[in-house]
Amino acid sequence: MSTITILGAGLMGTALSWPLADNGHRVRLVGTHLDGEIIRSCLESRTHPGLRRRIPDGVQPYYVAQLPDALDGTDVIVSGVNSLGVHWIGRTLGPLLWPGALIIGVTKGLEASEVGNPRIMPDVLADELPASLRDRVTLAAIGGPCIAGELAGRRHSCVVFTSRDSGALECLRAIFATAYYHIWLSTDLIGVEACAALKNAYTVAVGIAGGLLERAGGIDEAGAHMHNLAAGLFGISLAEMTRLVSLMGGKPENVAGLPGAGDQYVTCAGGRTVRLGRLLGLGRTYTQAVAEMEGETLEGAYAIQQVARALPIWESEGLLGSTELPLMRFLGRVITEDAPAVIPFETLLEEVGATIN
Amino acid sequence: MSTITILGAGLMGTALSWPLADNGHRVRLVGTHLDGEIIRSCLESRTHPGLRRRIPDGVQPYYVAQLPDALDGTDVIVSGVNSLGVHWIGRTLGPLLWPGALIIGVTKGLEASEVGNPRIMPDVLADELPASLRDRVTLAAIGGPCIAGELAGRRHSCVVFTSRDSGALECLRAIFATAYYHIWLSTDLIGVEACAALKNAYTVAVGIAGGLLERAGGIDEAGAHMHNLAAGLFGISLAEMTRLVSLMGGKPENVAGLPGAGDQYVTCAGGRTVRLGRLLGLGRTYTQAVAEMEGETLEGAYAIQQVARALPIWESEGLLGSTELPLMRFLGRVITEDAPAVIPFETLLEEVGATIN
Repeated sequence: MSTITILGAGLMGTALSWPLADNGHRVRLVGTHLDGEIIRSCLESRTHPGLRRRIPDGVQPYYVAQLPDALDGTDVIVSGVNSLGVHWIGRTLGPLLWPGALIIGVTKGLEASEVGNPRIMPDVLADELPASLRDRVTLAAIGGPCIAGELAGRRHSCVVFTSRDSGALECLRAIFATAYYHIWLSTDLIGVEACAALKNAYTVAVGIAGGLLERAGGIDEAGAHMHNLAAGLFGISLAEMTRLVSLMGGKPENVAGLPGAGDQYVTCAGGRTVRLGRLLGLGRTYTQAVAEMEGETLEGAYAIQQVARALPIWESEGLLGSTELPLMRFLGRVITEDAPAVIPFETLLEEVGATIN
Repeated sequence: MSTITILGAGLMGTALSWPLADNGHRVRLVGTHLDGEIIRSCLESRTHPGLRRRIPDGVQPYYVAQLPDALDGTDVIVSGVNSLGVHWIGRTLGPLLWPGALIIGVTKGLEASEVGNPRIMPDVLADELPASLRDRVTLAAIGGPCIAGELAGRRHSCVVFTSRDSGALECLRAIFATAYYHIWLSTDLIGVEACAALKNAYTVAVGIAGGLLERAGGIDEAGAHMHNLAAGLFGISLAEMTRLVSLMGGKPENVAGLPGAGDQYVTCAGGRTVRLGRLLGLGRTYTQAVAEMEGETLEGAYAIQQVARALPIWESEGLLGSTELPLMRFLGRVITEDAPAVIPFETLLEEVGATIN
């Protein structure tokens, strides 16, 4: 039996309690400063309000102030926050960590460095740790298609654990894997993490098709949807993702697999990112859409902003042609310049050689 | 203005009338011996019963007996049949063709050769042509996500025209492309055609998740579907498709693009292949499912049968390990041996290195 401390009591952080508890581990669920109400609910009624489920019996809830206690004797730390919380996690954990600590993150996102290169979440987190610890802590992450509510419902989920340390991966799999939580391993940390962020970005494009359908009056008299358009944008997304993963230093193999295609497929099944795309397709500017979705974390838009910053850098370094990645450039204009979400088919078609074989 | 003769008045063959007519071409729509009722409806009321639409004004319907007239002076022939009709097309067209004829096919499928190697549809068609003509006719094909009813509704569709002859591709694009029918080009005929067939095969797997959900009682009390499982199978499908396309002699680049991921995405949106998977997931054997779906052409199952024949050949040639492609092997057992559709997670996980990077 191991002791696992989950920091961040949002949907995905908390959902990992189910396989861990089912495996008999001691699980400590620590809310962030934003999760006070969630922890109170878990303590008072054992119910997570977002997941709408009773948390498993073995799970012990903690308020953020109790973090030092929750870390006492722990074997694995789960970083369960979204991409905006990764700096906080690093700064908060930093003074409390020890050499040899093992941290696995659920965060899917990218963040541009000061010069603009997109960086993966484990590296962003590592930068917040004390320099003396940075190379003595093992960082891992989770990619692949996994809606938290389904994992908490013990539905079959196929994910990829990734880390530069293959020994740590085997250890993590032994702790987390259950008959319903199926874990593949990859040492291509950059590739898996890039896919995890980019699928959020490109799902905005697929979502636009839904808005365009509504705007065109919906399903027509003979039953035609706009599945063709959504699927076209899905396919072009994966072609561009292959290029972007390579530019970032990852292996393209994970794109046609669970971290890329699989995760984008489940993201397109619904949720915030699709809703953002729908509003854009309906004709809202990004600024208007954000106002309508007030309070929601738009990780897809955030990922687009980060990649948009990187494109001119890769161009100036001669790594990228000025018309390559036309779908991402279009998304960049929509998100950073409030450009209308009119799919630029002509531009997409010009990139025949570069993005579609 | 060109003259285009479409042989096969099914959904996709007929749907191509819309972009062609919108471009001002003369379109001749010739029913096969199975399409007599369709042609009669088109002649009497200008309505295609399957598409539930009036066919465009410029389209001239022909019965199969009138094929020689319909081919008189034509510039491009469209082979508009399903994979079971390709032999018939080749044998029927053969005596009527001329050197330099240009044929583009909509058929998505594979067919095992006598020794068992899977062959793409243009090659199967070519084999039925007179030997004197075989190398003097240009064959092309269409891949990518395109539901016929949406194309006929002038919804945006992103497809890939493929041929070994790049000059013919430019010519075909000039004839077919419209403001809603967007055409990319690829000279990787095998890769595009392999994707077109394999996405039907693997969509059976994704469809199984829908049946398993129903069998488990549907969406649970907290709202959990089985999107994670469907997406996991989708991602694993693309990883295996990458391997299979290479084995068949195609380029893997088209998998993470319109012909692979894009086409599988739209196929998973509904239709026969998903319904077959659903019945299997509900617990029917393949034999029982076929009986329930009487009369429907199950191209996904047919593609699985063809690939299943090839696996032992590739193994004996040392090209494939005996446990590689575990999802396809599972589908093969379900379709050829009436095995129960219990997803073999352990086997899928063993193939970490081979199929998931």
